[in-house]
Amino acid sequence: MSEKKIIAAIGGDRRLVEAVRRFARDNTVSCYGWDNCPEICGSIKRCSTLEETVKNADIVILGLPCSPDGKVLAAPLCDSSIRISDLTAVIPKDTVICGGMLPTEITENFCKCIDYYKDELLQTGNAVPTAEGAIMIAMQETPFTIDGSHCAVLGSGRIAKALVPRLKALNAEVTVAARKKSDRAYWETQGIKVCGFEKAKDILPYTDILFNTVPALVVGKTELDIFNNKGIIIDLASRPGGVDFEYGKKMGKRIIWALSLPGKVAPVTAGRIIYNTVVTLLNEKGVMV
Amino acid sequence: MSEKKIIAAIGGDRRLVEAVRRFARDNTVSCYGWDNCPEICGSIKRCSTLEETVKNADIVILGLPCSPDGKVLAAPLCDSSIRISDLTAVIPKDTVICGGMLPTEITENFCKCIDYYKDELLQTGNAVPTAEGAIMIAMQETPFTIDGSHCAVLGSGRIAKALVPRLKALNAEVTVAARKKSDRAYWETQGIKVCGFEKAKDILPYTDILFNTVPALVVGKTELDIFNNKGIIIDLASRPGGVDFEYGKKMGKRIIWALSLPGKVAPVTAGRIIYNTVVTLLNEKGVMV
Amino acid sequence: MSEKKIIAAIGGDRRLVEAVRRFARDNTVSCYGWDNCPEICGSIKRCSTLEETVKNADIVILGLPCSPDGKVLAAPLCDSSIRISDLTAVIPKDTVICGGMLPTEITENFCKCIDYYKDELLQTGNAVPTAEGAIMIAMQETPFTIDGSHCAVLGSGRIAKALVPRLKALNAEVTVAARKKSDRAYWETQGIKVCGFEKAKDILPYTDILFNTVPALVVGKTELDIFNNKGIIIDLASRPGGVDFEYGKKMGKRIIWALSLPGKVAPVTAGRIIYNTVVTLLNEKGVMV
Amino acid sequence: MSEKKIIAAIGGDRRLVEAVRRFARDNTVSCYGWDNCPEICGSIKRCSTLEETVKNADIVILGLPCSPDGKVLAAPLCDSSIRISDLTAVIPKDTVICGGMLPTEITENFCKCIDYYKDELLQTGNAVPTAEGAIMIAMQETPFTIDGSHCAVLGSGRIAKALVPRLKALNAEVTVAARKKSDRAYWETQGIKVCGFEKAKDILPYTDILFNTVPALVVGKTELDIFNNKGIIIDLASRPGGVDFEYGKKMGKRIIWALSLPGKVAPVTAGRIIYNTVVTLLNEKGVMV
Repeated sequence: MSEKKIIAAIGGDRRLVEAVRRFARDNTVSCYGWDNCPEICGSIKRCSTLEETVKNADIVILGLPCSPDGKVLAAPLCDSSIRISDLTAVIPKDTVICGGMLPTEITENFCKCIDYYKDELLQTGNAVPTAEGAIMIAMQETPFTIDGSHCAVLGSGRIAKALVPRLKALNAEVTVAARKKSDRAYWETQGIKVCGFEKAKDILPYTDILFNTVPALVVGKTELDIFNNKGIIIDLASRPGGVDFEYGKKMGKRIIWALSLPGKVAPVTAGRIIYNTVVTLLNEKGVMV
Repeated sequence: MSEKKIIAAIGGDRRLVEAVRRFARDNTVSCYGWDNCPEICGSIKRCSTLEETVKNADIVILGLPCSPDGKVLAAPLCDSSIRISDLTAVIPKDTVICGGMLPTEITENFCKCIDYYKDELLQTGNAVPTAEGAIMIAMQETPFTIDGSHCAVLGSGRIAKALVPRLKALNAEVTVAARKKSDRAYWETQGIKVCGFEKAKDILPYTDILFNTVPALVVGKTELDIFNNKGIIIDLASRPGGVDFEYGKKMGKRIIWALSLPGKVAPVTAGRIIYNTVVTLLNEKGVMV
Repeated sequence: MSEKKIIAAIGGDRRLVEAVRRFARDNTVSCYGWDNCPEICGSIKRCSTLEETVKNADIVILGLPCSPDGKVLAAPLCDSSIRISDLTAVIPKDTVICGGMLPTEITENFCKCIDYYKDELLQTGNAVPTAEGAIMIAMQETPFTIDGSHCAVLGSGRIAKALVPRLKALNAEVTVAARKKSDRAYWETQGIKVCGFEKAKDILPYTDILFNTVPALVVGKTELDIFNNKGIIIDLASRPGGVDFEYGKKMGKRIIWALSLPGKVAPVTAGRIIYNTVVTLLNEKGVMV
Repeated sequence: MSEKKIIAAIGGDRRLVEAVRRFARDNTVSCYGWDNCPEICGSIKRCSTLEETVKNADIVILGLPCSPDGKVLAAPLCDSSIRISDLTAVIPKDTVICGGMLPTEITENFCKCIDYYKDELLQTGNAVPTAEGAIMIAMQETPFTIDGSHCAVLGSGRIAKALVPRLKALNAEVTVAARKKSDRAYWETQGIKVCGFEKAKDILPYTDILFNTVPALVVGKTELDIFNNKGIIIDLASRPGGVDFEYGKKMGKRIIWALSLPGKVAPVTAGRIIYNTVVTLLNEKGVMV
């Protein structure tokens, strides 16, 4: 049912490269800003100007996060900087624009914007590379095995649901601290020990590895004071994070704030997830690729 | 923090007996309608009249379902029938009444009613004995092992979340059919194959065991026509069920409608779940037991 | 590489029927003694005499156990009895004879005998239906779920290796009692609690379900005296079993001796295992089927 | 039953420190050669001469490997070198000597030698940190997740038995290549795909991560020629390893020879395993600690 589209990929990191390679199987793809990416497959055309890249494009695909400052594209593979005002100057207003965390400079200038970052497919899909990245860090940063260690996971969302069964399968002793009783009931059906947040303090002195997934200050001074000195805290929560880092540092606790794990530990997988998400979102809007 | 309460247990089945035994550890408990239940522990007082049973009671606990017809209590262990009008006649209006699926004859007559059936703790907790019961039936009713069999699970709710990981752990090839893309994304993070309902037809001819958890007609004539003749359908959905039973029977398909599994396959566990739920609900209302 | 063979199947139960159906895909198959087996597929020829059945046969396949008394074939699907002396009278001495637990009346009369019962493929393969059968019995016979129950497994062989991970996956608390320290070390790498046999006594009073896999008297008077009165013992060991049944019965303990589970709970799977084993054994002897 | 012993620990790495800390709970312990190990707990006495260290010692504990060259102890935490001839000069001949891979210079000089390296407890116990280390390397060195990747494991011994279920639990597609049919039958009971070594070639072109556990040249030129160019080979086999490294390098294949993982990724766990093994071996010889 899909028909060949003309797609322009601009900026982004290795994840975008991986996503776009998949589009290139069945579509005509040009790219810009991938200077330091030697291994592009033959069918993607490297362009030297933005004009050439977007010429006749049905869809423009940008990276994630698209542009942290709203002015210049995040483009770590590009030798020069790509300004959003240059994009708006050359791309027709009704072109479909796909990107992650699109800034208002883009959403206000184009009428067919798709922000793939917010989609559940991406968020849920990313839970797996995040969980694997968290496990990798735990293995790297502790002198003991996950097998037999006491792990605590704060929170009960997507990341916890990917992380907890993996820790259990590696034979850790896992306890989940969850606020809602329905979440606690769920974990018990999976054979996982649970406690409320107020009871987390009982387990912190004996916890070897504490994974936080809650983006709110849940590991504050009280929790840090009692946390096992030989343990490690791996904070997986996005900004502002869930740990009082400064106080923890002062107290000599080992804390790692592990952000953006999918792109760091598994860019190919993360790129595939972006691809799947964008295809689904395009199809939902009637654009078949 | 809890203080000794006077509790009256009336009617119900073995699950209620098990739940009430746990209350009897720290409370004063009387029972009525447990004639055919020889093994009650010493501290529960058997009464021969309703009046005696409920005298001074803080809490009256009834079974699940409390009374299918709204007139007589479900009391399979009782030699005579217990009428709701007899209860309302002898129990003070402000007594706490706990029961499952309380009929209006009760909720209209008492001002402190707690229906534990609707609570998430009970619903989620029951998913485990339901899943085990479904697996037991599959083992009993098929001449092959679950190991290596092709299983399909329709739906993505509590029961599916308890059933699917158990089937996978028994080395079945499991596919979940889920309507929502967020549910499908979730299952994929758990290493489970998924499809939409519209695609379920592709797998039905090769499915050995089909578990339905959706309480709506999802296995109709079309699905039954193509379903594997050597396979079996186990419907776990509450009334009206999810299978066109009549047509399926006519077509010679093997269909089992497995209702109320917790009470049938694991009444002790189901009683413990009722106990935990009732304690939590009482505490939430400020009644400490 | 395989070439069409002429195969005669005589006696046996449903497992043999299932095994032979698979041979019938690529070979010419006759059968005798399957009177009460309506569903044979078209290509298997039913014969009314032994002579007709074995005529020109390259291979004769018999059931498991072939003949408990050494005189008459085990043939539960047959209306009459089939005597071994009748077989030896009509089958040429150099015909390949495959059967399970072949009696000397056969091994002494034929020079190309293959006893598939002794083969590791069959023994190991059967561990799965045995483990599933044991789990089914535990589900049927206890009023609680396997989830959360305290299970003990005596022994560390094939059946234990299939049973223990399944119990763990169903969220039981499993302890394995193993005699050899290397076995105990193995189980610990799998996240399973272990103890020596002499320490098993410490756990018996708290064990809900005791699975024995050791064919020697390991559950004697001492063990039965202390075993949990609400628990159940499922003995999976072949004769003479591992439990002092008489004493256990006297003490009111619940004991189930579950023999020959593969044929009972999963004859189709058990038949597939026989087929795979016989094909491998034939190939090892240079007979390609 | 154990009585306090006088124990001297000499040389070794962090694993030995961890092992000895556990001995120090109930015994009198001196150490030598731990200069760069600041965190020894108070009860272990640091000595400045060998004489002082071994004075009155019942047991001398050495590291693993004790001494690769047979002349000088492996002592990475020591600023100077410790010669075996110095040990033999000051330790009475009938002192119990425990070490890993004891050289003949020691076994010929002392009559009560215990080589803990060869023991099954240590070998089997180490399979877990080896498996976790292998998984950590796979996560670090590949741009994709283990989830969904195609993994092949060559061999069927202790390491494979620890590694394979962990990979499966992380939702990899795992195939085990095993030589013996009994091993293949075992893996099938665990829901794992298997093949013989001769068939491994069929899967190599599609394998993302190849783990070798066989200490013999099983990944030679033929295998390397067809191995997936985007894949990685992690060789866990001890010397001489199982891969033709030179040819693989020439062919541009990514190969990691991961030796001695327990000490590298989990020295605390590895130390605990050494402790458990030494205690068991001492007890078996009648020395209670």
